[in-house]
Amino acid sequence: METTLNKISTKQVYTFGNKKAEGNTKMKALLGGKGANLAEMNLIGLPVPPGFTITTTMCTTYNKQGKGFTISLLKNDVEAGIKHIEKIMGSVFGDEENPCLVSVRSGARDSMPGMMDTVLNTGLNDKAVLGLAKKTDNPKFAWDSYRRFIQMFGDVVMNTNAQSNQDDNVFEEIIDKHKALKNITLDQEFSVDDLKQIVAEFKAKIKQICKQDFPEDPYTQLWQAIIAVFDSWETPRAQLYRKLNKIPDDWGTAVNIQAMVYGNMGNQSGSGVAFTRNAATGENVFNGEYLINAQGEDVVSGVRTPQQITLKGSLEWAQLAGVSENERLKNYPSLEESMPQVFAALNKLQHHLELHFTDMQDMEFTIQEGKLWLLQTRNGKRTGAAMVKIAMDMLSDNLIDAETAILRVSPNKLDELLHPVFDEVELAKSVLLGKGLPASPGAASGQIVFFAEAAKNYPKSILVRTETSPEDLEGMNIAQGILTARGGMTSHAAVVARGMGKCCVSGVGALKIDYKTKTLKINGETLKDGDWISLDGSTGKIMKGKIVTKDATLTPEFDKLLKLSDAYAKLKVRTNADTPHDAKIARNFGAQGIGLTRTEHMFFEGERIKAMREMILAADETGRRKALDKLLPMQRADFEGIFEAMHDLPVTIRLLDPPLHEFVPHETENQQEMAQEMGISLAEVKAKVNELSEFNPMLGHRGCRLGNTYPEITEMQTRAIIEAALNLKARGIKAVPEIMVPLIGNLAEFVYQENIIRKTADKVFEERKTKIDYLVGTMIEIPRAALTADKIAQCAEFFSFGTNDLTQMTFGYSRDDAGSFLPIYIKKGILKVDPFQVLDQEGVGQLVEMATQKGRATNPKLKVGICGEHGGEPSSIEFCHRTGLNYVSCSPYRVSIARLAAAQAAITNKA
Amino acid sequence: METTLNKISTKQVYTFGNKKAEGNTKMKALLGGKGANLAEMNLIGLPVPPGFTITTTMCTTYNKQGKGFTISLLKNDVEAGIKHIEKIMGSVFGDEENPCLVSVRSGARDSMPGMMDTVLNTGLNDKAVLGLAKKTDNPKFAWDSYRRFIQMFGDVVMNTNAQSNQDDNVFEEIIDKHKALKNITLDQEFSVDDLKQIVAEFKAKIKQICKQDFPEDPYTQLWQAIIAVFDSWETPRAQLYRKLNKIPDDWGTAVNIQAMVYGNMGNQSGSGVAFTRNAATGENVFNGEYLINAQGEDVVSGVRTPQQITLKGSLEWAQLAGVSENERLKNYPSLEESMPQVFAALNKLQHHLELHFTDMQDMEFTIQEGKLWLLQTRNGKRTGAAMVKIAMDMLSDNLIDAETAILRVSPNKLDELLHPVFDEVELAKSVLLGKGLPASPGAASGQIVFFAEAAKNYPKSILVRTETSPEDLEGMNIAQGILTARGGMTSHAAVVARGMGKCCVSGVGALKIDYKTKTLKINGETLKDGDWISLDGSTGKIMKGKIVTKDATLTPEFDKLLKLSDAYAKLKVRTNADTPHDAKIARNFGAQGIGLTRTEHMFFEGERIKAMREMILAADETGRRKALDKLLPMQRADFEGIFEAMHDLPVTIRLLDPPLHEFVPHETENQQEMAQEMGISLAEVKAKVNELSEFNPMLGHRGCRLGNTYPEITEMQTRAIIEAALNLKARGIKAVPEIMVPLIGNLAEFVYQENIIRKTADKVFEERKTKIDYLVGTMIEIPRAALTADKIAQCAEFFSFGTNDLTQMTFGYSRDDAGSFLPIYIKKGILKVDPFQVLDQEGVGQLVEMATQKGRATNPKLKVGICGEHGGEPSSIEFCHRTGLNYVSCSPYRVSIARLAAAQAAITNKA
Repeated sequence: METTLNKISTKQVYTFGNKKAEGNTKMKALLGGKGANLAEMNLIGLPVPPGFTITTTMCTTYNKQGKGFTISLLKNDVEAGIKHIEKIMGSVFGDEENPCLVSVRSGARDSMPGMMDTVLNTGLNDKAVLGLAKKTDNPKFAWDSYRRFIQMFGDVVMNTNAQSNQDDNVFEEIIDKHKALKNITLDQEFSVDDLKQIVAEFKAKIKQICKQDFPEDPYTQLWQAIIAVFDSWETPRAQLYRKLNKIPDDWGTAVNIQAMVYGNMGNQSGSGVAFTRNAATGENVFNGEYLINAQGEDVVSGVRTPQQITLKGSLEWAQLAGVSENERLKNYPSLEESMPQVFAALNKLQHHLELHFTDMQDMEFTIQEGKLWLLQTRNGKRTGAAMVKIAMDMLSDNLIDAETAILRVSPNKLDELLHPVFDEVELAKSVLLGKGLPASPGAASGQIVFFAEAAKNYPKSILVRTETSPEDLEGMNIAQGILTARGGMTSHAAVVARGMGKCCVSGVGALKIDYKTKTLKINGETLKDGDWISLDGSTGKIMKGKIVTKDATLTPEFDKLLKLSDAYAKLKVRTNADTPHDAKIARNFGAQGIGLTRTEHMFFEGERIKAMREMILAADETGRRKALDKLLPMQRADFEGIFEAMHDLPVTIRLLDPPLHEFVPHETENQQEMAQEMGISLAEVKAKVNELSEFNPMLGHRGCRLGNTYPEITEMQTRAIIEAALNLKARGIKAVPEIMVPLIGNLAEFVYQENIIRKTADKVFEERKTKIDYLVGTMIEIPRAALTADKIAQCAEFFSFGTNDLTQMTFGYSRDDAGSFLPIYIKKGILKVDPFQVLDQEGVGQLVEMATQKGRATNPKLKVGICGEHGGEPSSIEFCHRTGLNYVSCSPYRVSIARLAAAQAAITNKA
Repeated sequence: METTLNKISTKQVYTFGNKKAEGNTKMKALLGGKGANLAEMNLIGLPVPPGFTITTTMCTTYNKQGKGFTISLLKNDVEAGIKHIEKIMGSVFGDEENPCLVSVRSGARDSMPGMMDTVLNTGLNDKAVLGLAKKTDNPKFAWDSYRRFIQMFGDVVMNTNAQSNQDDNVFEEIIDKHKALKNITLDQEFSVDDLKQIVAEFKAKIKQICKQDFPEDPYTQLWQAIIAVFDSWETPRAQLYRKLNKIPDDWGTAVNIQAMVYGNMGNQSGSGVAFTRNAATGENVFNGEYLINAQGEDVVSGVRTPQQITLKGSLEWAQLAGVSENERLKNYPSLEESMPQVFAALNKLQHHLELHFTDMQDMEFTIQEGKLWLLQTRNGKRTGAAMVKIAMDMLSDNLIDAETAILRVSPNKLDELLHPVFDEVELAKSVLLGKGLPASPGAASGQIVFFAEAAKNYPKSILVRTETSPEDLEGMNIAQGILTARGGMTSHAAVVARGMGKCCVSGVGALKIDYKTKTLKINGETLKDGDWISLDGSTGKIMKGKIVTKDATLTPEFDKLLKLSDAYAKLKVRTNADTPHDAKIARNFGAQGIGLTRTEHMFFEGERIKAMREMILAADETGRRKALDKLLPMQRADFEGIFEAMHDLPVTIRLLDPPLHEFVPHETENQQEMAQEMGISLAEVKAKVNELSEFNPMLGHRGCRLGNTYPEITEMQTRAIIEAALNLKARGIKAVPEIMVPLIGNLAEFVYQENIIRKTADKVFEERKTKIDYLVGTMIEIPRAALTADKIAQCAEFFSFGTNDLTQMTFGYSRDDAGSFLPIYIKKGILKVDPFQVLDQEGVGQLVEMATQKGRATNPKLKVGICGEHGGEPSSIEFCHRTGLNYVSCSPYRVSIARLAAAQAAITNKA
């Protein structure tokens, strides 16, 4: 009781308006996020509509002491708050001539999206609606607003639908009935009389269900709306949300009551949006659009053609749109021309705001009877190109410092500068077929093929598969883009496509493929081999037909930004590359070495796959060695190419990793072919394929388990690596190999492999009478390896976290099967993000940290990096920086992103 | 240099013999394990052959200072040691008349098995071999011993084979040549002349390869053997072994030189083995076997029929073997009769030894010309029954205390008392077909069937499958035993069979099944449906034909032991049981509750599987609810039965866990049947089966991921549990349900399930107007759950470690696929044991410990148990005790084992 008394003795209502405010931005705990911001906007001189905030402590009081007590406490202050609004607005709450209307909104300390709907237009009743009609000279608008208010109030405040005991929405039912009567389909087709009739029926329905009248008295409306906001704090949905997000129950929510303003009150009114700079290009030009006598939604709805704010913009627009100067002046004058004083005020404001926030601002404004109101200002959304240009321009102009400039660019937006994008006009006209995961960014159009071999049948093809496998590599390389029905962000298709810098949309549940008839079905559409289709790998969207793309163009500002970033970054950025070609691309993007070369990707081409299959089919070690001898020169040549492309920089080569069944064909036709090639029977091939099949291949015979059961494979690969490096040495080129043993789970596994590697290397050194330096280390991708990293570091010279597999095993999620529940988990909030995209710092990250600490405790010089897909994801890179890793490694096209993210991590975490 | 001087100034050779010794059992660091034991045996008065030990520090000296220095240091002491042996044995080293021969053996501080072969018969040369021939009156024995000595010395000491540059063994090559010449196959068929010829050729071969003569001088032999033992410390194999086992390189090995004794020196000589009690039954009767004028290997080889040691034993043996008293006295007299003084000495010795070691002893002895030598005494191996009886008898006789009695019984040996075993005589006569994993103990014979449905075709059948699935449950229950080609110790077949107390051999790589022709092939044999086969689930052996079994019989000592154990155990023992029948069996074995009821096992019978499939096929929630409504009464009835069987004790029920595809048929025939039952097309069934198939089902859509995507399943199961408990309450029976959510990986997943469970329970309580207490907890089986256990314990009321899955994910081993590499890993020493059998304390155990500590830090009252297969494995139980778990849960037939192991853990870990 003492606490309550303490609380109620303090101020409970904080007003704002007319560039004054009783609160400020630091009072978020008391006023909620929204309330504190509204106060602050006044304090910096913005003309925001006046209002007041009821504190969060009153919510707690309400929950403890109930409605009557709370209202009696607040009554005077709330009434004073309304008077405060009326005075500034020059209107009267609920008045028939000059009505003042308000919005009522919740506002907790932290944003809790979707917790409570806003109640707009509070104060409207049978009288005030007439005033609104008169002032706007628009009875239809007034009655439609009234209709909407009753529906919203009935639903949110009076719980009409919840009490109705029926599934259908009672208000929509009435609207639908009237549409049917009038044979119309859209709300705006209703006449004023229709709307009046609907209002009457809404009120009757409320009375019937709630056993009370819809309240005509504006203060009754206001109090009920305030109480409804308080009640929304204790709904089961809100309680669960707080439990999951660890928000204390006693924080409570504030209530914000703010004047409504209208841009549709005649020719001295209007609404618009404005940007301090060009959001598409970043150019430093004030711009925006507005409409006279219109609400904000009219500007963005596209029903009327909006006008430009500046004269310059208006002239440019007219030229592009083919509008004559006469017509422009008559129908589309700029704000600068139509309301020069308002424009001057707005222009002054935008300068002020950009200087205040030192960032490009996106403003919503309304002009009510000649008075400019700012409804909102925020840092403006912008394209990747604009983001880079604005940051670097502001740095040049000394508006911001270098660190701020680096932090201003969202690393993921750099993708837009690195990959082709669709022409926006063409894209807007296209037909959307469906959506999948944005697995690899970029835009591509092509003709559908269903088999990798068919990719070459068309000049531009899109490969469509249920899922891809290493057998499809060549076709994936030829195709413009890849579309798969299954698989997540780290599926084979996704990983390979990102490596190739090729667009890919994966995990499209709605996509059904019939390989026999070479057709696909998606959301009712059927397409066949040869049909055109377009993919946006940055959004996951799939469009019908062909869409023109624009190529990527790297600007000087982009280069400048990345050079600047390198000066700040502590983490080095390496790349995952399996070919000299990829290695060169990555080096051009600034990669400082290779963090992962997957040797198996080399085994799928032509003669190699034959020798590989010969090895798999061999009955014993002798047979395997014979086949490996054929592979040796090919592997050696591959490594020479990669070492040369990455000369002087470290190249981490992972020994054979995937299960052997990935190298044998699974369709009878291909098995027949293999049987012929190998000179054995189809039955023998089938028997071997069957023997190799596993229930859970991800947890099966792969990684170093292969090298430990067939040591001759490790021997061959080591020999190829060392011989390649020595061949380059003979040519005066320095190779820096780091040999990586995959899938280690305990020290003994590593020691066995290390012994084979060192013995083989020594043998080659002796044969060639010369040496090179090399390291032997391991991937940490099995939870047990992380748990016992202190032991493994006794022998391993480096660790590289394979966070794809580590995530799979730490969560127990198969990346290829998670599509059946991961999207649902994210939708329900059980997971905040896909852990295959963003490193799970709480769980997987705990293992990464543990392994790094344990490993370094044993061997302080241990080199530690990450080569999973998370190596190119900004928040994961920040985690790697904090954990003290030496480098991250990512696909070539993400190297720039990682460089920027590494710099941001260093800046954000400065001691 | 100072250290070396310090060391060499101390004593370097320690003699033993004639019941005196310079060392003792505490000097393992200096004398090695074997040397310290030999000294101790003398000190307690045992007549072991005399000898001396060179200390481990000399090995280090040798490695630092080299051969010359070491020999010069040791020369006097070693020669004195040989004199010491000669004096006691009354013979001369290398003498032509009366040769004294010695063995030379390594002996490190810790046993390092397989590091260095022993060199026996050192001192034999062209002269001494004549003396040996004369004394044994057996020239063939003498020359064969000489032949063996040269071969061993050549191989181990002179490295002849390593220097030969050929793959085949040079000595075996010579032997094979002579066998071919004489057209014989066995070594013992060689004549004396053959052996002399071979000896000559061996020596020539050594000279040819090693460029030096085989040394005739006994001291040269001795020194070379000693140096070879020192060298063996630094072989790569030994270095690797030390690295893996963390044995410091500077420990070094000791060298033991001991006199050889011979039981084949005429009729006053002999060899034998003896036991202080009956190793089969545990009866307190001295017994054993011997042979006159024979070596120890002759007694066990079965070439001659051994004689009994005691008169009583001899008379009993004669009666069983149908040997007349005359014949017995003539050919098979007891030692008590043939050498009464030696028998008296031996009998005195055995009394002495049992009192000294307070355990049943197994002794090897040799009588050389009337003198009794004890070669070895150790705690005797015994059957499970004998183990229990001996421990309880010794406790009764106050020879040992209760704690010692409990520790004396190996828990795993209790299996022999709980399951049928084969008649040993019959078993010895049977044909072994192959071997697999001992997946579930017991012995069974039956006629082969290849399909679960066929199990009922024969009165006794053995179900043979590549692997089993839940569809096979009914057939598995009918069959006598189960044999599978794939799968490890925690495969479906193994887990289910152990639950049923039914014999199972799994993971038989050599077994190939052809379901079409209903035949199997194994190691060259082909068997068909209906053929008899026998399985020993305790050893993994598979025999051809029918073998008579003996039933399990529980003795009063067994009961006494377990009651005694319960007084010491801190861990409670629960059981994993899915049916009232299993629950009752387990309760009879002393289970104190159920730790795991797998609800899905109930879904496979008759009508249930239909309703289950209807649910899976349903297009939406409404359809699923309809099918679930049909399952509800069946589940409720199941739970009532289990609660009743386990009344007053806690019953942990796990909600639906396996992926849904386990419930649909995978063969077209059965799919057709399902289509008819469901009234849909085969194509629809196939499409659904295909949709449910996963790449890695172990990491797929299962566990709480089902309950979170289809909450109605959790609702139905909760309702069934709560209604069942309330129904029992109405009948005055107390149910104690603990509802367990499977496969939790983060707190939110648990909260979602918990909310559904509590809401459903509250609803049922309201409907029935009565309540019961229940807990909601979770399995910890995903590494991430262990890592974030502090969070999960905010809501979970108990943890139960599902160590099967936790092992799979921590190691990244699929239990169904690990057969391709786990056996190789164990053979190569990369893994010491199968982690699915024995909990991996270093890795998986780290997670168990972490989760327990983190969980209890959040909720000190958290109940923690284990329900994986490790819950019945003694070393894992000991770990659970140390980690502070509240209970272990295991299959009914392992409850006794777990009770004993829990007591042992408590005793071993007493503060």
